[in-house]
Amino acid sequence: MAINTRRIKNILFGEPFPTRAEIHERLDKVRALAIFASDPISSNAYATEAIMSVLILLGAGALRMTLFIGLAVMALVLLVVFSYTQTILHYPKGGGAYIVTKDNLGTLPSLFAAAALMIDYVLTVSVSVSAGVRAITSAIPSLFPHSVALALLAILLLTWINLRGVRESGTVFALPTYAFVVGVLAIVILGLVRITGIFGAAPPVLPQHTFEVAQSTGQITQFLYIWLILRAFAAGCTALTGIEAISDGVAAFKPPESKNAATTMIAMGIIAMSLFLGITFVATHIGLVPIEHESILSQMARAVTGNMPGGGFISGWVQLFTMLILVLAANTGFQDFPRVGSFLAADGFMPRWVQNRGDRLVYNSGIIMLAFLAAIIVVIFRANEIHMLPLYALGVMLGFTLSQISMVKLFNKIMKLKPGETAQTTVTTIHHEAHAKWKRLLPGFGSIVTGVVLVILIATKFMEGAWIVVVAIPLLVQLFRSIRKHYDMVAEGLSVRNFDSSQMRQYADVVIVPMADIHRGSLRALAYARQFSDNVRAISIITSPEQKERLQRRWDRFKDVTGDCELILIDYDYRDILTPLVNYIGDVTNKEFPGKLITVIVPEFIPGSFWASLLHNQTANILRIRLRGYEDVAVVDVPYHIRKHKSEPPTATQPTNEN
Amino acid sequence: MAINTRRIKNILFGEPFPTRAEIHERLDKVRALAIFASDPISSNAYATEAIMSVLILLGAGALRMTLFIGLAVMALVLLVVFSYTQTILHYPKGGGAYIVTKDNLGTLPSLFAAAALMIDYVLTVSVSVSAGVRAITSAIPSLFPHSVALALLAILLLTWINLRGVRESGTVFALPTYAFVVGVLAIVILGLVRITGIFGAAPPVLPQHTFEVAQSTGQITQFLYIWLILRAFAAGCTALTGIEAISDGVAAFKPPESKNAATTMIAMGIIAMSLFLGITFVATHIGLVPIEHESILSQMARAVTGNMPGGGFISGWVQLFTMLILVLAANTGFQDFPRVGSFLAADGFMPRWVQNRGDRLVYNSGIIMLAFLAAIIVVIFRANEIHMLPLYALGVMLGFTLSQISMVKLFNKIMKLKPGETAQTTVTTIHHEAHAKWKRLLPGFGSIVTGVVLVILIATKFMEGAWIVVVAIPLLVQLFRSIRKHYDMVAEGLSVRNFDSSQMRQYADVVIVPMADIHRGSLRALAYARQFSDNVRAISIITSPEQKERLQRRWDRFKDVTGDCELILIDYDYRDILTPLVNYIGDVTNKEFPGKLITVIVPEFIPGSFWASLLHNQTANILRIRLRGYEDVAVVDVPYHIRKHKSEPPTATQPTNEN
Repeated sequence: MAINTRRIKNILFGEPFPTRAEIHERLDKVRALAIFASDPISSNAYATEAIMSVLILLGAGALRMTLFIGLAVMALVLLVVFSYTQTILHYPKGGGAYIVTKDNLGTLPSLFAAAALMIDYVLTVSVSVSAGVRAITSAIPSLFPHSVALALLAILLLTWINLRGVRESGTVFALPTYAFVVGVLAIVILGLVRITGIFGAAPPVLPQHTFEVAQSTGQITQFLYIWLILRAFAAGCTALTGIEAISDGVAAFKPPESKNAATTMIAMGIIAMSLFLGITFVATHIGLVPIEHESILSQMARAVTGNMPGGGFISGWVQLFTMLILVLAANTGFQDFPRVGSFLAADGFMPRWVQNRGDRLVYNSGIIMLAFLAAIIVVIFRANEIHMLPLYALGVMLGFTLSQISMVKLFNKIMKLKPGETAQTTVTTIHHEAHAKWKRLLPGFGSIVTGVVLVILIATKFMEGAWIVVVAIPLLVQLFRSIRKHYDMVAEGLSVRNFDSSQMRQYADVVIVPMADIHRGSLRALAYARQFSDNVRAISIITSPEQKERLQRRWDRFKDVTGDCELILIDYDYRDILTPLVNYIGDVTNKEFPGKLITVIVPEFIPGSFWASLLHNQTANILRIRLRGYEDVAVVDVPYHIRKHKSEPPTATQPTNEN
Repeated sequence: MAINTRRIKNILFGEPFPTRAEIHERLDKVRALAIFASDPISSNAYATEAIMSVLILLGAGALRMTLFIGLAVMALVLLVVFSYTQTILHYPKGGGAYIVTKDNLGTLPSLFAAAALMIDYVLTVSVSVSAGVRAITSAIPSLFPHSVALALLAILLLTWINLRGVRESGTVFALPTYAFVVGVLAIVILGLVRITGIFGAAPPVLPQHTFEVAQSTGQITQFLYIWLILRAFAAGCTALTGIEAISDGVAAFKPPESKNAATTMIAMGIIAMSLFLGITFVATHIGLVPIEHESILSQMARAVTGNMPGGGFISGWVQLFTMLILVLAANTGFQDFPRVGSFLAADGFMPRWVQNRGDRLVYNSGIIMLAFLAAIIVVIFRANEIHMLPLYALGVMLGFTLSQISMVKLFNKIMKLKPGETAQTTVTTIHHEAHAKWKRLLPGFGSIVTGVVLVILIATKFMEGAWIVVVAIPLLVQLFRSIRKHYDMVAEGLSVRNFDSSQMRQYADVVIVPMADIHRGSLRALAYARQFSDNVRAISIITSPEQKERLQRRWDRFKDVTGDCELILIDYDYRDILTPLVNYIGDVTNKEFPGKLITVIVPEFIPGSFWASLLHNQTANILRIRLRGYEDVAVVDVPYHIRKHKSEPPTATQPTNEN
């Protein structure tokens, strides 16, 4: 049995890695970019469109502003990326918002950062998977009714790949990520070439739809105008989710960890922003307009490759890898959620087992927990990512703000150091740095900007669902705190400070052996009991005169085993025989031997298989569970395995009751 | 916690009855008729119509034959009822097909009888509940989409009432049962009065529909004609299900049990047959024709009360109680299935716990098992009883046949007795009887008739689903036999025949204490271990150098507790620390002390609540489960409860790992 389970596990998830192999499982920059950056990169598939979809409400003319808003988003992304690069270099063991905030602002703010980020990672998975499924069902409409099932399947698949280990998932995810980047770059370059008209032909402008929505509803007030611009900006900000992931995962990089992580971070920023800028520039220049049934990216691919040999191939390539990267974007969540969880667990704010690493050296519990939560969101929202988006991106923005304020405080400390001097924070070592004053400007400015964006996000999306997140974050923080409180209590209870061995509870020289009948199993338990006490009491709850007579008869028959043990028979007129049994044991521990440890020996019949266990009362198991309430009762299971005596034919007599 | 569960249980199901109160929970004849006979009596709601629905295929003229086929069914019912009355008188402790067949034909045939009956009782519940729900959704069509949910709700309700005890359900069911009988009797009498024209007015004959289905499809062959007559008869035979129930439930009657049961049986037969004959007679005489959207019974109620003051009330009464009795008919299954199950369990053919009686002295497990199986059938067949009917009534017919053949054999034994002589069968006592030879004719003839009917049922319904039952019965018999085989093996293993106390395994003077850390809990376990062995080995699986150093340091610090115990540290480079632990223990039991009982002490930290337990590794539990595979390892749980020291503030240090 055990061997088979192990083998199935190994086939599904691969051979276990020894702990020392951890270094071999580290990520090179190519793989790291694929698994950490899939979310920021995939944002390009929809960020431009998200901005345009809001602007279109102001009329088709307003689409001209897409590029400006796009540039604002891009500036924000680059600001955060460079700010985080600083963080990574200062926190070489991993420096996500939780760690950095804890180190500089204290526990409570760090818990807010962690709660916000974890909520956002769950949403990353639900949103990405749902968006990916929408891309698939747009291509194959007959699959539409199965959207939820497909999304759950995608989550299952991602869970499986992630459980197989970080390097393996890096390998799997590299191809679609880079293929997407190449494909999008190709159409951007093609678009630029056509716009500049180097080859003589201007790109074929698609037929212009006329949108007069806003005008037709009357005058646009100044307020509404600004409001919609802000909303368009907020929509574009979904491109910022997932930037955090690399900073938490520094420890997963090959050495030198922080240098490699910082390089990967910058590469991610440059790639994501080139694509975003390129798409936005081309899309606005050839006059694309968001429509219901085709994405901007797809329209653009068709437009720029329109009357070109091999154009269909490029366009198909982009569409295929867009679908894939949308699903894979979820992986950023799969990377970071379990890591943040393990940091919290190490500090006692999440269940301890969240920090345990599985056979493949990944945080199994965190991965499974994330998959489970994301699946719930997918089911609740029926795999409709449009309805999830208002809840999204708030969390990261809170994380960014807190993390950057923390970096400002860290630079304040660094500035106090003299040249050559070093100091120790709770987490990391800081050295004197030249120009620390100037470096501080980056997170300083960044924190103000992300703080303002956070307010904009909450304000513009509050009623559509952002309030859920605003309520959920403090609740989650409270949960973290009560988990920690429990662990503190346990630690105190188990602590050996002031431990005095004379306080130890004494052992009471009494052993109680409950038995329903006298057979080989109970005789074995009795013989065992006599080995370590002279005060052995066999106890049986009697529900019929026949049972009493039979027990007494057999007791006397096996005098050489029962010896001078006491046989206690308790008459009982109900069927739940455990109640009088537990009451008797309770009296012995509370009244007869208060403050001493008594022993109960349970003869336990072990059926050969799960199916066989269904045929037996679970009396021994239930008794053990009910006795857990008593502080001073040690419970001994004496197992009894049935052996087949193949030589004898099965008896035709009625089977004896067993425990 | 425990008190609250108990209180909720008491509110839901009532206070537990003591075992000696069983006699007070016995049924008088009025209640017994209501709970056992609801199925046979409810058959009147549809049996006539079932026959007519088949005959109509031969043309409206063929409906004249309804009465003759009805008389045939009636004759069959009376035959079985009187035959079973004999059985009850000869088996005063209960004499359903299983017991009687076991006593006279042997184990294997009796298992076939039991399997057939149990399958039929599951179907009784699914069919009745679905038919009742159809009656409700006919009245309130908007409920139709919720048929399955309503049927499941009805099953839940019946389960609940039955779990509250037999007398209480008798009281609850009496009103609708008798109200139905009174209502139907009233319209039958009204119908007869009108037909005879005593009050001058012949009953208003409903507009005659013309059915020419069979004719229009061409010539009816002789074979088809007989085939359809047989099918009509087979359809009427569903009226026979549930007759068996009283004979199994004799022990539930007030004393004199068998006399009261026999009287109730006869009363049931007379009531059911008067209603059936009355409905069939009136329905054919006023020329009713089965139509899709209204039942024959409802048509008849409207017809005979048509232009009469208060007629609407009578008609409404009949419709209301028809609905109710259709649902309640399921209760016959709830009575008999658990009883047959308990007989089988007592003989080791079903899990032993099926014979345990719950707090209210009913067979809880059997009731819940039945509800569960019936719910599955309801879900599979989407609460459509029409599709279930072909599977139905076969089982009872096999039971009747086997039971009556058994009675013939019993009478053969009785006939051999001289006047005044008595003899003992495996189950009951038989006496000399006058006219035993003549009495034997009843079951003799009955078994031939039900045997022929069984063949007809299988032949006419085989392809529509009866084959499922034909396949299922032998499979179930095989399951019974393998359960018994398991119990035989267990009984042999536990048996104290040839028991020799010198064969008992010896106790090895070694105690192993696995520990992850040294804290109050593990020190307590260690101190306990030292009480009963001088060879105590503390064992810890080491996954990091820090852990090793810390353990060794603390071990030395608490020398007064650890004493001369051995500390075994095993380095391990994977995370599943239980594997090396179990391997070590396996080596000790198999290689170091083969054939001797060794002891493992597990310090177990007991969290205060279920939620708290989620925060801790289940290491102790999993270890216990994995050690169950070893025959000679006794496992001791030494519990450690956390106490709150309210005086001290919670420590801010990082919590220690606990087990």
